[in-house]
Amino acid sequence: MNYKIAAITASITLTLFNQSLLATELVKQAANGIKLPTDYKNWRVISISHRTDNNSLRTILGNNIAVKAARSGNTNPWPQGSILGKVVWKQKTEEHWPTAIAPDKFVHAEFMIKDSIKYKSTGGWGYARWLGEDQKPYGADEDFALECMSCHTPVKDNDWVFTTPAVMP
Amino acid sequence: MNYKIAAITASITLTLFNQSLLATELVKQAANGIKLPTDYKNWRVISISHRTDNNSLRTILGNNIAVKAARSGNTNPWPQGSILGKVVWKQKTEEHWPTAIAPDKFVHAEFMIKDSIKYKSTGGWGYARWLGEDQKPYGADEDFALECMSCHTPVKDNDWVFTTPAVMP
Repeated sequence: MNYKIAAITASITLTLFNQSLLATELVKQAANGIKLPTDYKNWRVISISHRTDNNSLRTILGNNIAVKAARSGNTNPWPQGSILGKVVWKQKTEEHWPTAIAPDKFVHAEFMIKDSIKYKSTGGWGYARWLGEDQKPYGADEDFALECMSCHTPVKDNDWVFTTPAVMP
Repeated sequence: MNYKIAAITASITLTLFNQSLLATELVKQAANGIKLPTDYKNWRVISISHRTDNNSLRTILGNNIAVKAARSGNTNPWPQGSILGKVVWKQKTEEHWPTAIAPDKFVHAEFMIKDSIKYKSTGGWGYARWLGEDQKPYGADEDFALECMSCHTPVKDNDWVFTTPAVMP
């Protein structure tokens, strides 16, 4: 083991971590106390989708626990500590490929945090969403999560998750 | 600096790196000599798209150089060493949300590698694609890259790249 390389690696990791902390600390927490997950935009892809009912494109990202679960088929139930993040954009036509649809304006980022005890009242998942580029928390009071849960009821038997991890060899 | 933590971090990093190397070494290189980029499925998201002309969904990933460039608006030209990876799936209807389109079968992963000297004959980008889950290289001989380049000609003034990085706060 080369400790110099190790130290540099750790130093870079800590620097990136601190920068992310600084950015997310400025974002208000959701009404149910959930904070914007640090560093979500550096998470790996689990899947993507295109919702034609509201003309939006989405990428579904996961923290390390969730990505590991997704890639090993261990998603019903998802393991404790899994966080799924959905990043949503309005759609537009790709300028130079008119039959392609690409992201336009950023709409929101929303999250599901698996903790069967802490979030027992909402099916074992904590829900939160931040709107727009200024990342304003969604929901006037903590009951907003019931709205999330209601929408996810069709996938109750899929551990409340719509996403099927996309195959990526 | 805690060297024990640093050493563990470096050890985990090396282990993951070696596992990825092992996997990608089994994949045949493209006819132009390009090897499947190690660890691409752990890269971060730059954008996504839905091509309605061939019913496919795509996520555009980048190596660290490309992601840094995408997030700082430094993409025309993209910096030397940038690698863009496009992961493509056939589309299907989301089972529990009939107006949503989600990834079905994996089609291919394709890459653009920026090296203005090495790939001068193809606009400064090296192209390669691996088909299907068994990752078979696309193209009978090295001229396949001319086909890629031809298709990218409409975006010659955009450094040959269709993708506009999606906004992610």
